[in-house]
Amino acid sequence: MLEKMDLKKKMEPEEAKKLLEEASGKLGRLQRECRNKGIPVMIVFEGMGAAGKGVQINRLIQALDPRGFHVYTSERSNREERLRPFLWRYWTKIPEKGRIVIFDRSWYRSVQADRFDQEMSEKKEAAGKKMEVDYYDIRSFEKQLTDDGMVVIKFFLYIDKKEQKKRFEKLEASKETAWRVTKEDWLRNKEFDHYLRINEQMLEATDTKYAPWTLVEAEDKNWAAVKIMSTVCERLAYALEQKERQEQSGEKEAEAAPREAFLSDVLAGVDLSKTLSREEYKEQLDKLQKKLEKLHNELYRKRIPLIIGFEGWDAAGKGGAIRRLTSHLDPRGYQVNPTASPNDIEKRHHYLWRFYRDMPKAGHIAIFDRTWYGRVMVERIEGFCTTEEWQRAYGEINEMEKHLTNAGAIVLKFWLHIDKDEQERRFKERMADPAKQWKITDEDWRNREKWEEYEVAVNEMLLRTSTTYAPWIVVEGNSKYYARVKVLRTVVEAIEARLKELEG
Amino acid sequence: MLEKMDLKKKMEPEEAKKLLEEASGKLGRLQRECRNKGIPVMIVFEGMGAAGKGVQINRLIQALDPRGFHVYTSERSNREERLRPFLWRYWTKIPEKGRIVIFDRSWYRSVQADRFDQEMSEKKEAAGKKMEVDYYDIRSFEKQLTDDGMVVIKFFLYIDKKEQKKRFEKLEASKETAWRVTKEDWLRNKEFDHYLRINEQMLEATDTKYAPWTLVEAEDKNWAAVKIMSTVCERLAYALEQKERQEQSGEKEAEAAPREAFLSDVLAGVDLSKTLSREEYKEQLDKLQKKLEKLHNELYRKRIPLIIGFEGWDAAGKGGAIRRLTSHLDPRGYQVNPTASPNDIEKRHHYLWRFYRDMPKAGHIAIFDRTWYGRVMVERIEGFCTTEEWQRAYGEINEMEKHLTNAGAIVLKFWLHIDKDEQERRFKERMADPAKQWKITDEDWRNREKWEEYEVAVNEMLLRTSTTYAPWIVVEGNSKYYARVKVLRTVVEAIEARLKELEG
Repeated sequence: MLEKMDLKKKMEPEEAKKLLEEASGKLGRLQRECRNKGIPVMIVFEGMGAAGKGVQINRLIQALDPRGFHVYTSERSNREERLRPFLWRYWTKIPEKGRIVIFDRSWYRSVQADRFDQEMSEKKEAAGKKMEVDYYDIRSFEKQLTDDGMVVIKFFLYIDKKEQKKRFEKLEASKETAWRVTKEDWLRNKEFDHYLRINEQMLEATDTKYAPWTLVEAEDKNWAAVKIMSTVCERLAYALEQKERQEQSGEKEAEAAPREAFLSDVLAGVDLSKTLSREEYKEQLDKLQKKLEKLHNELYRKRIPLIIGFEGWDAAGKGGAIRRLTSHLDPRGYQVNPTASPNDIEKRHHYLWRFYRDMPKAGHIAIFDRTWYGRVMVERIEGFCTTEEWQRAYGEINEMEKHLTNAGAIVLKFWLHIDKDEQERRFKERMADPAKQWKITDEDWRNREKWEEYEVAVNEMLLRTSTTYAPWIVVEGNSKYYARVKVLRTVVEAIEARLKELEG
Repeated sequence: MLEKMDLKKKMEPEEAKKLLEEASGKLGRLQRECRNKGIPVMIVFEGMGAAGKGVQINRLIQALDPRGFHVYTSERSNREERLRPFLWRYWTKIPEKGRIVIFDRSWYRSVQADRFDQEMSEKKEAAGKKMEVDYYDIRSFEKQLTDDGMVVIKFFLYIDKKEQKKRFEKLEASKETAWRVTKEDWLRNKEFDHYLRINEQMLEATDTKYAPWTLVEAEDKNWAAVKIMSTVCERLAYALEQKERQEQSGEKEAEAAPREAFLSDVLAGVDLSKTLSREEYKEQLDKLQKKLEKLHNELYRKRIPLIIGFEGWDAAGKGGAIRRLTSHLDPRGYQVNPTASPNDIEKRHHYLWRFYRDMPKAGHIAIFDRTWYGRVMVERIEGFCTTEEWQRAYGEINEMEKHLTNAGAIVLKFWLHIDKDEQERRFKERMADPAKQWKITDEDWRNREKWEEYEVAVNEMLLRTSTTYAPWIVVEGNSKYYARVKVLRTVVEAIEARLKELEG
């Protein structure tokens, strides 16, 4: 694609000025409309070194209301970021509804410049393999965001080898700017064709209908500025049109067709009579906790992140299980993240945003007390999202967990299961105990009335999102002793299995 | 203080267990009450290496509802953090109302372990000087938070040289834990007395009435656990009592006594007739923008952070001045932060929290379109905070700006001044222009009615918060040309002055 570009494209300063002024007024208007309609926008700038990304971004933002945008510069990733999946740093920065985020370099950096650096340092084969996985993760990232209503605009600024060389030399000639040109920059210029091929592959692999690339001939700054500004205007206008059409045709369109009744009943097969005596419990608990304490050290040393999600009926014993899991762990290495209803800011983001934020660094454990599965349970049942949205969520969640495991994480999800009678018994017990009364609210009783609806949702969830890389473990929970030990044992075994894998 | 401690303190496991269970129930209750009353709590763990901070924190959090607390571990600071004032990483992590944050190591790290490391590496003198500044910043940090209603509980866990050596040896004896003991740990053990002296000084300098230290004899884990748990319970109970007393005596107590009428009138002395012709404007603007572009590079290379605040009457031309300031800058090196009314999350934090979050890294420019001075203007006038709160704010703001300049930042604050007639003219002009109508809201007209009240507040603000290290610059704004050039020139000159200082 790149080599076929006509780099002789030019525009007279006077004409460019006129067009930019027009576009600028238009862009301001479009920005305000997008804010009113709650459309989030992400604009990505990639391209060759010295192609003028900085100048172009600055021109673009002069036309924007500063209350509505934010520019992020992707420098080399910091330690916090390197210890997490590579998209984590971008997930945490996505715009909320109605806002614009501009990325000067982006998630493409790792499949472009970083790849080049790796290939140059003779890690060629490993680099190639990693790329395929990264492309998959990137496409899924952009798909999830655009499915959620975001506009993603991607620019690639191109100049050729000769022009780049000229610009580097000019930068180096001045005392103030010489430091901007690095050894790596010169290497990329010298090995321009190789670098070009990497960029071509990247563009091919990630040029999608929902997030297409716009290639920008960047030798002439005026031409580039007009092309960029016009493209942003067009894309925003189109998004607004679409939004309007959607609103006019009513919310109906957004609703997916009803599906066939869901038949498979995972929960029915659970044997709730499993139990453990107090002595067995004490003994096994003690043994497993001590083992876990040691394994926690190993996780840390081998830099393996561990993600554990807890779901289950109210009063199924999530809190107790979590306490037994953590009571011997070093608090510096784990975090319990309780999930409540989303707050204002969280509601204005993609529903997975707040969970990404709490994902553990490599070597750490993150325990979620209720999880992202709320989307296909409470949000589905209470109508907090559309049918189309929760139906789409199964795939989205699987993709997120794939991304996490691609980055080396162990992902375990526990469904703590009890039957309806046991729940009633526990509710009443809590009501009778002054120290526990606060744990029971009217909402718990209301949820209980929807037990059958939840059962359908849970069954579908367990089936659709239990994967080889992130399995659901259904825990027989009528006996608390049995449940706690099963959770601990599962975690211990999962870590041991991974450590063995790494050794082998 | 430390050497006088009775390290023979012990407690039988059975007794400890009983006391801990009691305290545990009590703590859970207190945590819920603090949540209901919106009291934020910060608990700090410091102490000698291998004194058992991890174990003690874990015991403490087992008694807490995980939905209400968060543990932060202060590892060595990352790059994002090192490029900002040293308290920045903690300001951004303070608990919101009703929540508990626990720090495993904290802001004391830099005046304790880091200082020791420095002294050992023969940077002794520089270290000593920096300490005094850091102690000042720490006291002011804790004072601001406790003044705002936060409970700050600080533990120092002490073991002696012999016991520490024993524990290091035990850790090293096991394959799983050997990596935990570092060369630095052994050096601190070897030079125990020196390290002790540093800790003594730290405790003395920061043991205040509002945030006292609790020294914990940590040789016996049970003793330490009981002491810690009881202390937390006591402090929370006391805070709740105080809160209740305050509520009962009505809000009256919180209101400060009225002060003498404020007389000095800074604004009256401003000469609004200053102006500039279009030709002079164009010429000077162009020259200054080019100069600033170059200086921006110098700032970056010398790692100087630049903080520019804009305040002024509605329609005084803040937006226009900011645009002229930024139009030639590289967007990778600056950020415009518009300040709107605080959102939900921001309201639940100290009012300075959200501004800390946006403070620039070393070498970067942060421009604030409206600032933390909202506290002593709109919040004062609209009654969004109590009289006592806005009166306290002058000192708090001065302290914050001191902390920023201590960390090497240039801080400039512009008040864009126009008279009431000029404002009316501009409002009407905007209303008449379809492209600008959205800029004028009913609120602007309402604010205008309070012009005289604002005048009093602005005069007081300019007087009380113009400091040698962070001056206010009043900009004569009736002529936009004049104002924009003055802003640019002031910024350019401030940077030049700093660069000269660094050279000299």
